[in-house]
Amino acid sequence: MHYETLAADLDEGLLLITLNRPEQMNAFTVTMADELVDVFRWANEEDAVQAVIVTGAGKAFCAGMDLSVAGNVFGLDEGLDPTLKDMREQPHRPEIERGVRDTGGRVTLAIYDCVKPVIGAINGAAVGIGATMTLAMDARLASNRARIGFVFGRIGITPEACSTWFLPRIVGLPQALEWFYSADILTAEEAREGGLVKAIFEPDALLPAARALARKWVEKRSPVSLALIRQMTYRNSALSDPAQAHEVDSLSMFYTSVGDGKEGVAAFNEKREALFSAKASDMPSFYPWWKERSDRR
Amino acid sequence: MHYETLAADLDEGLLLITLNRPEQMNAFTVTMADELVDVFRWANEEDAVQAVIVTGAGKAFCAGMDLSVAGNVFGLDEGLDPTLKDMREQPHRPEIERGVRDTGGRVTLAIYDCVKPVIGAINGAAVGIGATMTLAMDARLASNRARIGFVFGRIGITPEACSTWFLPRIVGLPQALEWFYSADILTAEEAREGGLVKAIFEPDALLPAARALARKWVEKRSPVSLALIRQMTYRNSALSDPAQAHEVDSLSMFYTSVGDGKEGVAAFNEKREALFSAKASDMPSFYPWWKERSDRR
Amino acid sequence: MHYETLAADLDEGLLLITLNRPEQMNAFTVTMADELVDVFRWANEEDAVQAVIVTGAGKAFCAGMDLSVAGNVFGLDEGLDPTLKDMREQPHRPEIERGVRDTGGRVTLAIYDCVKPVIGAINGAAVGIGATMTLAMDARLASNRARIGFVFGRIGITPEACSTWFLPRIVGLPQALEWFYSADILTAEEAREGGLVKAIFEPDALLPAARALARKWVEKRSPVSLALIRQMTYRNSALSDPAQAHEVDSLSMFYTSVGDGKEGVAAFNEKREALFSAKASDMPSFYPWWKERSDRR
Repeated sequence: MHYETLAADLDEGLLLITLNRPEQMNAFTVTMADELVDVFRWANEEDAVQAVIVTGAGKAFCAGMDLSVAGNVFGLDEGLDPTLKDMREQPHRPEIERGVRDTGGRVTLAIYDCVKPVIGAINGAAVGIGATMTLAMDARLASNRARIGFVFGRIGITPEACSTWFLPRIVGLPQALEWFYSADILTAEEAREGGLVKAIFEPDALLPAARALARKWVEKRSPVSLALIRQMTYRNSALSDPAQAHEVDSLSMFYTSVGDGKEGVAAFNEKREALFSAKASDMPSFYPWWKERSDRR
Repeated sequence: MHYETLAADLDEGLLLITLNRPEQMNAFTVTMADELVDVFRWANEEDAVQAVIVTGAGKAFCAGMDLSVAGNVFGLDEGLDPTLKDMREQPHRPEIERGVRDTGGRVTLAIYDCVKPVIGAINGAAVGIGATMTLAMDARLASNRARIGFVFGRIGITPEACSTWFLPRIVGLPQALEWFYSADILTAEEAREGGLVKAIFEPDALLPAARALARKWVEKRSPVSLALIRQMTYRNSALSDPAQAHEVDSLSMFYTSVGDGKEGVAAFNEKREALFSAKASDMPSFYPWWKERSDRR
Repeated sequence: MHYETLAADLDEGLLLITLNRPEQMNAFTVTMADELVDVFRWANEEDAVQAVIVTGAGKAFCAGMDLSVAGNVFGLDEGLDPTLKDMREQPHRPEIERGVRDTGGRVTLAIYDCVKPVIGAINGAAVGIGATMTLAMDARLASNRARIGFVFGRIGITPEACSTWFLPRIVGLPQALEWFYSADILTAEEAREGGLVKAIFEPDALLPAARALARKWVEKRSPVSLALIRQMTYRNSALSDPAQAHEVDSLSMFYTSVGDGKEGVAAFNEKREALFSAKASDMPSFYPWWKERSDRR
C-alpha cells in the first residue's frame, strides 16, 4: 500500500495508521478521506491485522478540514438542491456521492464497519473532523498535549461525520450539546473528565500505551469473536427492542459455538490455552445480519 | 404578547420565560401548558430570539400540576377507552387532544422542536411536571435552594412529558429508574451528582449564570447553524443507524456551506470576525427533514 | 412452586429468588433458564409479589454456563444453518427455540417483561450469564466479595442475553466495549466505579440492603403505577422519537388517573395516606402497548 496522506504500518498484528501531512498539521482532505476508507476496508479483509491504532505525524493529530484547499467541502455546486430522498435512494449518484455526501461521514462509517478493535492515539490538536473521526473508535487515549475541539459552530457549519450519533452515546446528551454549542477547544484533562478520553499520557508514552491496550484486547482471542463483539455492541445497542438483539445473539452464539467456541470451551475444560482458527475474513453466514433487515438503512 | 401564567421578556437576544403564578408556587395548569406551547412557537419564528431561559417567579420553579383545579388532568371523561391506535392516528381529534393527550408532553415536545438553545434556571421547588419540563432543555442550572422531584409514583400515576424518553438519555438508565421508583425530592447537590444539573449557584447568581451560558452559546454564531446543531443532536442520536445520521449531516453541511459556512470559512481564512446573515426563520429546504421519513412519527 | 435449580421465597411482598446449585457455584443450565423464565412469569401474575430480588446460594452468585453439562449450549445440531429470517419469523419452531435461541436471552427477556422492580444482590462470582442476567435488573447491589466478568471473548464466543443492548445503556458505550474486549474479572469496586453496581456491602449486609431498597421502591405505591414506570422507562427510552413516548404517556396518565391516581390525588389533597386498589394482574386495556406497534418486534 502506498498512500499520499497516510502511513500504514503493520507490526505484530497491530496496524498503525498515521495521518501524515505534518507540514499541514495533518489537515484533512478528500484524498485523506478516500485513503482512510481504503485502509479500513483493507484492514477488514486482511487477517494479519488484529487491531488498528490511529495517530498523527508530528505535533498534531488532525487540525480539521484543510480549508486552504479549494473544493474540499466548500467548492460545492450551488445549483444542486438535494433532498433527504436523494440521500436515501441515490447515495451513489456521482453528484450526490462527490458533491453532497459528507466526507467525514464516509470515514466514520468505514470505521464503524470495521471488524477489528480501533484505538485513537490523540497526540496533539484534534479539531473538527480531527475530533469527530475519533468518535467511531472504541477508545481514545490522549497525550497531555492533545487539544480537542468540536468547533463547527464557530464557522457557521454543523457537526458532521455522524458525530451527533456517536458523541451522545459516549459522553451523554447534555455534555454533547454543551461541547457542540460552546465549540470550545478542550484540554486533554477536560476531555477525560467529560468521558471522551480514557486516559492521558506523556507524549512518548502514548503509542506504547495504545499498543498495550490493543494487545490486551486481541491476544489469545478469536478474530471472529472480536469482530462480532464490536459489531454487536454498536448495532444491538441502537435497536429499539432487546428482542431484536436476542435474534442476533442467538445466531452469534450458534455459529461461534460450532466454530472457535468449541475449541475455547474444550481448552477451558482441559485447562490449556485455546488455539483459535477462525478468521475474520470468513465470517459466519448470518454476517452482515443488518443487510437482511429491510426496515433499516 | 400577554400571558396569564407567564412573563416573557426579550433582552439582548435572550428570551426569559418566567412561570408566573407565584402565589400557587407556579403550579402548572392547562392554560400554562397552552401558553408555554405558544411562547416556544413564537420563539422559533422570531429571529430576535437567540436563546431561551426558563425560570420561576418567587420561591418556586414549578410545584407540579395544580391539583386544586378541577379539569386539569383528573377531570377526565371516564367513558373514553382510548387506544394506541387512536393516539397515533387521531391525535388532533378534540376529545383525544383535550381529554387524553398528556398536557406536559405537549410542552416538552414544543421545547424539543425549538431551534434555539434552551436553559432551565431552577430557582426552587421543581416537582412533577416542574421537574420533567426541564428535561427537554439543553442544560439545567440550579439555585442551592432547588428541590427536584419525580414524584409521580407517590400519587399512583406515572412519569409524563416524555420524561421516560429524556431522563435516561441525560442521567443513564439505572439513575432514571431509581429516581422514578423512589419518587424522592432531590437536593440540588443530589441532582448535580446524578448528572441532571450542570452547576449550582447562590439564588442571586442563578439568572446571571444562565444568561452568561446562553450568551456563550449564541454570540458570534449563525442562528441556522445553532438550530441545526440542536435538532441534529437530539434527533440523530436517537436513530438506530449512523448511516441515517450521515444523510442528515450531508444535507446540513451542504446547505450551511453555501450559506453562513461560506462566510465562516472566509472569515477564518482572513482572520477576521464572521458576519453571519442566515436566519432561523428561513431554514434550508431539507428542514424539517424528519417529516420526510415516512417510517417515523 | 418446586424448582430443581432455584429457591423462591415470598416474604412481605418481596420475592427472593436464590440460584441454588451451590456445589456447582450456581452454574447455569437449560433447566435453570426454564425455571427462571417460569418464576418471573409467575411473579408477574401473582399480586402478592411486589418486587423481586435475585441472589445466589453459598459463595457464588452464578459462575456462568455449566460447561461440564453436554447439550447446554454446545451440543448443537451442526447441520442447521439458521438465518436472521428464521429467528424473526419462526422463533418458536422447535429446532430454533431449543437448538438456536440463546438460553440466557430467554431469561433476560423474561426479566425485561417483568412488571415489578427487580434487584440483583450479587453475593459472589458473577461470570458470563451470571453477569449478563443482572443487566436486565433495575439495580445491582454487590457484596465486597463479588467478582463480575463478561468473559465471553476468552472462550471464542460472544456476549449474550441481550447484554450488548443493556450494558451500553447502563455504563455507556466506551465502558461496555472495554469490558467486552478485555473480558476481565472485575472487583466489586471496579464495577461500582464503572457504573454497573450501585453500592457495595459486607456479605452479611447485602440481602438486608437489597430488601430495604426494594421496600423503599414499593411501599405505599400502586402496583399498576410501578408496573407502568418500569415498562415505560425501558421501552420509551429506546424509541427514536419522543412523540412516540408521548402516545404512551398519554394513555398511561389517562388510565391511572381514572384508577389509582384518583385516590392518590384525593389523599394528597386531604393530607392522608393513599389506599391504592388496582392490581398489576389487571393492567389497563392499552397494556402491553408495544404489541400494537406493527413496526416493532
